[in-house]
Amino acid sequence: MKNEVTLGIDIGGTNTAFGFVDVSGRCIAESSVLTKAQNSAENLFERLYPEIEKIYSGISENYILKGVGIGAPNANYYSGRVENPPNLKWGIVNVVEIIKKYFDVPAAITNDANASAIGEMLFGAAKGMKDFIVITLGTGLGSGVVVDGRLVYGADGFAGEIGHTVYDVNGRMCGCGKQGCLETYASATGIKRTVIELLEASDKESILRKTEYDELDSKMIYSAALNGDVLASEAFEFTGKILGLKLADAVAVTSPEAIILFGGLALAGDLIIIPAKKSMEENLFHVFRNKVKIIQSGLPEGNSAVLGASALIWNEIMKA
Amino acid sequence: MKNEVTLGIDIGGTNTAFGFVDVSGRCIAESSVLTKAQNSAENLFERLYPEIEKIYSGISENYILKGVGIGAPNANYYSGRVENPPNLKWGIVNVVEIIKKYFDVPAAITNDANASAIGEMLFGAAKGMKDFIVITLGTGLGSGVVVDGRLVYGADGFAGEIGHTVYDVNGRMCGCGKQGCLETYASATGIKRTVIELLEASDKESILRKTEYDELDSKMIYSAALNGDVLASEAFEFTGKILGLKLADAVAVTSPEAIILFGGLALAGDLIIIPAKKSMEENLFHVFRNKVKIIQSGLPEGNSAVLGASALIWNEIMKA
Repeated sequence: MKNEVTLGIDIGGTNTAFGFVDVSGRCIAESSVLTKAQNSAENLFERLYPEIEKIYSGISENYILKGVGIGAPNANYYSGRVENPPNLKWGIVNVVEIIKKYFDVPAAITNDANASAIGEMLFGAAKGMKDFIVITLGTGLGSGVVVDGRLVYGADGFAGEIGHTVYDVNGRMCGCGKQGCLETYASATGIKRTVIELLEASDKESILRKTEYDELDSKMIYSAALNGDVLASEAFEFTGKILGLKLADAVAVTSPEAIILFGGLALAGDLIIIPAKKSMEENLFHVFRNKVKIIQSGLPEGNSAVLGASALIWNEIMKA
Repeated sequence: MKNEVTLGIDIGGTNTAFGFVDVSGRCIAESSVLTKAQNSAENLFERLYPEIEKIYSGISENYILKGVGIGAPNANYYSGRVENPPNLKWGIVNVVEIIKKYFDVPAAITNDANASAIGEMLFGAAKGMKDFIVITLGTGLGSGVVVDGRLVYGADGFAGEIGHTVYDVNGRMCGCGKQGCLETYASATGIKRTVIELLEASDKESILRKTEYDELDSKMIYSAALNGDVLASEAFEFTGKILGLKLADAVAVTSPEAIILFGGLALAGDLIIIPAKKSMEENLFHVFRNKVKIIQSGLPEGNSAVLGASALIWNEIMKA
């Protein structure tokens, strides 16, 4: 008898990765194509499908495809559409309809952070949890909120935008047009902005003074902090403090068991988790204190996004 | 054939009201007893039960009791317990267990705001909605969050404490021990504190200057604002602005279709709704703009809490 797999597709600004994933979260085979952000969605799938078929032909003797899950920026689970993704010249396009031209199995789409949340629930750090929040700390800050074992999509399918809750109405300009959104502080770009501010505000020695503005990234800040750079450590403290404050607000809404940090900046581990946890506890309503864990993603770093996308459709299949 | 009713019990600091409510939300018969906050929970139910029996005997020829729903401060739906309610000397007590000594029907308990949310969903302004938030503006600020037709209880049963999200970490002292919680601004006591601050900060004429501190309440502020008192109007503007900002944060988490305002201060209607809506829109992430209504409760003022408590158990019965 053949084993069941789902196809997870993660559409990013540069690469579109995909993989065939079994019910235990094991990726059987995977590959990727260039997204070519200037081209249409149709063009991407015209190039992607042959590559998928090629990889599938290598495993189809032992595996049968049960569904297709897609993670993409600005994707709406309800409509199947991707709506004006910031990094792709797609406008509004129904990706689930396109997928159905190629595959005769169930398909579903959601944004990257929501896919990560379902991935953590099925295969990662949230296994066995019913109430948790995944925060993705990448270029921006995404989030996926799970309540009673179900992802929260909300009235319009766009729930879970904790990155755009407001830390400071007079704060940093956000790409979304507002000021002081959490993601302008707690994200890879946010911590870079913090370092620049700290460099400007003091004359503390720092290895980061020797880096060009354009070159500076969150990995360098992480390395510097690990090597005892005081200014880099301060940047993590500041980032964690703001993140913790806004996590306390989110906890007051849905009362999760844990917050799971995912993505590039989350790899800094305790450097961000310890100040975030301290600040969250200080700002939590007393009934929630010492109950809510902040932990790192339990998904393997390399193909976590593909696992998340496959988990989205595994989750549908299991419910059905 | 007899019609089905549930018993809704609303336990307040002063009175405990109850009523028999049919599936359409009509209250068939109701009464109340004094809570006597210094006495035990057992004592309350010893006094309450005979009164309930008396009222029930008047309708039991035509009605049959199907369940008991209770709304109480600091009540936990999962455990059935009330835990250290601020206004009652009860400590921790399992109210559902007490109820079961008297009634051989299903029983459930939750806090007042959650009961109101289910009441709005079954009988009030949220009929037909699947995603909404009820905000109760009384002495404090309570909230009940509904996602996909189900009340959010969270990991520990205490979800929906939007009153204790943080507006200003250096702001007003809150009864919970933190500073700057939303309820220190957006509540009956919050707007009173705002009026006192405004009276102190300016020498604007105001009818409210002629009121003793202890006498001043949100109804007077409402009347003054209706009569054109500029300072009272400013207090509503300020209250609505802060409420709207924190509602925008909550919308980003669960993406509700509407926010429903309930309780004393909500009776001010447009005086609070208009500035709250304006501020919410200004602070919403763009995908949510012009989608989320702010509306007043659709439950009758007099026995809305009893209807909410009865709705809690109606909702259980319907699910079963």
